[in-house]
Amino acid sequence: MNDLIMLGHGGGGRLTTDLVHNLFLKHFRNAALEPLNDSALLTMAQKNLAFTTDSYVVSPIFFPGGNIGSLAVHGTVNDLAMSGARPLYLSAAYIIEEGFSLGQLEEIVKAMAAAAAAAGVRIVTGDTKVVPKGMADGLYINTAGIGIHQNTPLGPQRIEKGDAILVNGTIGDHGAAVITAREAGFAQRRIISDAASLTHLVEKMRKNSIELHCLRDATRGGIGGILAELAEQAHSHLLIEEKAIPVREDVRGFAEIYGLDPLFLANEGKMLIFCAATDAEKTLQLLRSDPLGKNAAIIGRVKDSDSAAGQVILNTVIGGERIIDQPTGDLVPRIC
Amino acid sequence: MNDLIMLGHGGGGRLTTDLVHNLFLKHFRNAALEPLNDSALLTMAQKNLAFTTDSYVVSPIFFPGGNIGSLAVHGTVNDLAMSGARPLYLSAAYIIEEGFSLGQLEEIVKAMAAAAAAAGVRIVTGDTKVVPKGMADGLYINTAGIGIHQNTPLGPQRIEKGDAILVNGTIGDHGAAVITAREAGFAQRRIISDAASLTHLVEKMRKNSIELHCLRDATRGGIGGILAELAEQAHSHLLIEEKAIPVREDVRGFAEIYGLDPLFLANEGKMLIFCAATDAEKTLQLLRSDPLGKNAAIIGRVKDSDSAAGQVILNTVIGGERIIDQPTGDLVPRIC
Repeated sequence: MNDLIMLGHGGGGRLTTDLVHNLFLKHFRNAALEPLNDSALLTMAQKNLAFTTDSYVVSPIFFPGGNIGSLAVHGTVNDLAMSGARPLYLSAAYIIEEGFSLGQLEEIVKAMAAAAAAAGVRIVTGDTKVVPKGMADGLYINTAGIGIHQNTPLGPQRIEKGDAILVNGTIGDHGAAVITAREAGFAQRRIISDAASLTHLVEKMRKNSIELHCLRDATRGGIGGILAELAEQAHSHLLIEEKAIPVREDVRGFAEIYGLDPLFLANEGKMLIFCAATDAEKTLQLLRSDPLGKNAAIIGRVKDSDSAAGQVILNTVIGGERIIDQPTGDLVPRIC
Repeated sequence: MNDLIMLGHGGGGRLTTDLVHNLFLKHFRNAALEPLNDSALLTMAQKNLAFTTDSYVVSPIFFPGGNIGSLAVHGTVNDLAMSGARPLYLSAAYIIEEGFSLGQLEEIVKAMAAAAAAAGVRIVTGDTKVVPKGMADGLYINTAGIGIHQNTPLGPQRIEKGDAILVNGTIGDHGAAVITAREAGFAQRRIISDAASLTHLVEKMRKNSIELHCLRDATRGGIGGILAELAEQAHSHLLIEEKAIPVREDVRGFAEIYGLDPLFLANEGKMLIFCAATDAEKTLQLLRSDPLGKNAAIIGRVKDSDSAAGQVILNTVIGGERIIDQPTGDLVPRIC
């Protein structure tokens, strides 16, 4: 048997059936997936659902700290967790370029299975399409996710004046990792992505009765872009202290060389946390007690004044003020 | 403003926000989508869910009878309906090639909105990625869907000896339409796809208390491929009468010229129906009273004998017998 993906693997015939059994079912096996019917049948513990989707087109497909498969699990799990939902089920749909390596595909599928197990979710339904050579860039993956939420939903509509703003660790790691992995000097300058599922960290805050108002994973656009978006959605005036923002030394060095601002570099395991000011210190300690939050920091607050509603003001390390706006387009394409 | 998609439209910044507001929200607007948070929050009427996903890579993107957008709605809605579920919510995720026409994208989004309205589903969450020129073929769309099911789930495990096998109309229309649309003679030979949502037709059968056992939309692989798959899954011996299978004249002519078998041509608005033999005539009349079933036919039955369990035998028009097996790969790539 050929060890490359052929057009027929997406044709819905024998080759597709074999691929589904020998690859996807083998690694994802669970009771809901196993019947391999048109839909997975699920019984939910309750009726309030969160539903989300993301397509992943990251280049390169493998990068230090993960690959497109683990990213496709972490990213969608995090989108559910950010709404305050507990992620339960994922779909996985593959668009594969003809000639893609079956071995690499299996490595990616294994990474998805491991990421799903770690996040406590099951992959219950899927799809495989193959496009001719030159019609994709190796592999694109879509995941959609379903979670349940029992609490009041979180979101920008709940941001209040006085709220503390935290981040659970160093920023820009994923963006720096992916860009570095594209370069020739990859072997020398190995920056590790922060890609991770944040669901346990969110549950930890919930269990400790932190008065959470809004969570947002700072993916495309980085914390700068996301803060600008949230300020606009919440009509809030956000004040951020640049010196409080944790940035890893290797990421800072990378950003300086490339002339990029870590504020706008993508993260895949970092979230912005808006909570009641009275809970700020407790939240910080809680985050720091977890491996995914050990470099957490309080980076700012929602100002009481309405003078600059909808704006993000950064107090810079050199003592100035800077308005943080949403970037127009991409700093870097295909970061996730 | 440029009327072509730029990389920045997928960057998560201002251009993405504008695209989401001015295109997706404009046409899909509903209460669950509108907050534009990481996840859509949904309250389900009950706890038994069906969940499915499909990526659509059809070429050409526009074909007689539909486009990639309407197909992405019909296809996923049908996957839910085939499980006996009532489709309720869809996600929509776009992978767009840089340089794709914004006007065409709007036409596709409008077709999705119309198809969703017709099927009674809402598009509640989404994602947009843009890949550089040459890294896709215009546009790929993924939809995932959620439905609720109250009845015993349908599926091959419920197929019984003696069951009648019906199809709700002419076969091969979609495959013939897409292949014809790829050819130069497109303007002359205009074969119309059957792409449609089957959810109303399924509900009609439910309401009339038809004893349904298994439904399957005959997409990739055609009714031949799907029958072979079902026979295997159900360990059943299926007997099909070739002369009973409805085929449109233009599709039959097309298939003869290209040397293709309509049995294996894709459908996007046709399903195979397995029901109790005693309900066969009632089902037929019910289907025929609906525009989507006006050419419905009883095409075969599940044999009582175990002599050929797992096999599909076709009684051919010329009086012979032929074993119908799953095709190995693709008859035609990128049919959906």
